[in-house]
Amino acid sequence: MTAASREVTAAVLVIGNEILSGRTKDVNLGFLAEQLTGLGIRLREARVIADLEADVVAAVNETRARYDYVFTTGGIGPTHDDITAACVAKAFGVALVLDERAVAVLTRHYQPGQLNEARLRMAHVPAGASLIDNPVSAAPGFQIGNVFVMAGVPSVMRAMFDGIKHRLSGGAPVLSRTVTSGLPEGVLADGLGRLQERYPDFDIGSYPYYRRGGYGTSLVVRGTDRTRLAAAADDLFALVTALGGEPYEGDPPA
Amino acid sequence: MTAASREVTAAVLVIGNEILSGRTKDVNLGFLAEQLTGLGIRLREARVIADLEADVVAAVNETRARYDYVFTTGGIGPTHDDITAACVAKAFGVALVLDERAVAVLTRHYQPGQLNEARLRMAHVPAGASLIDNPVSAAPGFQIGNVFVMAGVPSVMRAMFDGIKHRLSGGAPVLSRTVTSGLPEGVLADGLGRLQERYPDFDIGSYPYYRRGGYGTSLVVRGTDRTRLAAAADDLFALVTALGGEPYEGDPPA
Repeated sequence: MTAASREVTAAVLVIGNEILSGRTKDVNLGFLAEQLTGLGIRLREARVIADLEADVVAAVNETRARYDYVFTTGGIGPTHDDITAACVAKAFGVALVLDERAVAVLTRHYQPGQLNEARLRMAHVPAGASLIDNPVSAAPGFQIGNVFVMAGVPSVMRAMFDGIKHRLSGGAPVLSRTVTSGLPEGVLADGLGRLQERYPDFDIGSYPYYRRGGYGTSLVVRGTDRTRLAAAADDLFALVTALGGEPYEGDPPA
Repeated sequence: MTAASREVTAAVLVIGNEILSGRTKDVNLGFLAEQLTGLGIRLREARVIADLEADVVAAVNETRARYDYVFTTGGIGPTHDDITAACVAKAFGVALVLDERAVAVLTRHYQPGQLNEARLRMAHVPAGASLIDNPVSAAPGFQIGNVFVMAGVPSVMRAMFDGIKHRLSGGAPVLSRTVTSGLPEGVLADGLGRLQERYPDFDIGSYPYYRRGGYGTSLVVRGTDRTRLAAAADDLFALVTALGGEPYEGDPPA
């Protein structure tokens, strides 16, 4: 397997009771999924877990062993329910230490006298971690091993991710083509299954939609070989046409 | 522990490559989180997993052993990438069988001659499963043991969930109060941590917000005892006021 063809994998851990209670609707997962795909990194699973030490430690250790990268969001603020940094330290079996670079960042950010003990919690990272810049609200995230720990507030998380992109090595980018028509899945299924068998290295998905204006199905083929992808898309167009549909490129109108 | 005070727990499994690739933004998790909370069921974790048999089987077996209820969304259509029913059967160690009740539902739904082999896949459920009605597009979900298998299309999933609500037994409903102010988390953190210590049976969360109009923090206290909840909310108001903030009930204006 060449370097370009090796699959680079990742998991996302969304940490926070507020997502599980339904109070907050997570938007970080969708953002990270798109970004990682664009970087040629396959997001293999995501978990939403509670602010419970045992749960966070277990999820970090399971996923960091299984995937090339792990990205966490949430739980790195100054309050008692922000336990992510301590949990990641525990998962790696290292101490949680006051980071002088983080102290310097926070000292510059706050007015004199405002850097209290609670805010200094945000300068504690697992020993050996490197910092992740936070251009929005100063308090940094951090990286230790293959685990990247970021904030839960979406604007902060996005800014942090922009800052670490260059540290990530993706595999061959996953390309995709989408062919949509008004045909229902049940009509397409048989031919589509046979097409999948002819392209075993491609991931062919079928996504029905129901809109006020009607219904239909988007067929999506994903893979890394551009030439074969074009051939697969041609075959999708031909399949839909042969079944009496009128295929077009892309998603259905919103 | 009385029946009313026992905690009833759940996990959600979102099954589908399209969520992990970023193509589709999941909205089912947020819906289920709200609904379960309203029913007095604690959503303890959620996982987004790929359309891979080993992953689905493992996730179903891990979560059904650990929680009172498991809810899955996605992967029950007629195409080759719809593998959820087969995976759940495998997880339970039972056969995937053609369900005559499901055949009858599909026969009524489709025009004569349209119920082809692919669509009949949707009438296959694990042996011993009971059906979950689908008033939107006919093809049913199913329940086996403590696992509820639903569609991924949000409108269909919601209709299915409405139909199974009455089968679920919640514990004591989790009540919550929210106190918001313009104070930053770092100012609140110390007093908030001490408040959490005084209410160990309550879950007190701190959620910073950044809006065009300013920033601040929402403090949320959650628990089952209405009288103590009111006392905790009073204490949150008093804490914010003592720190110079102007607290108000509820979330910040959007």
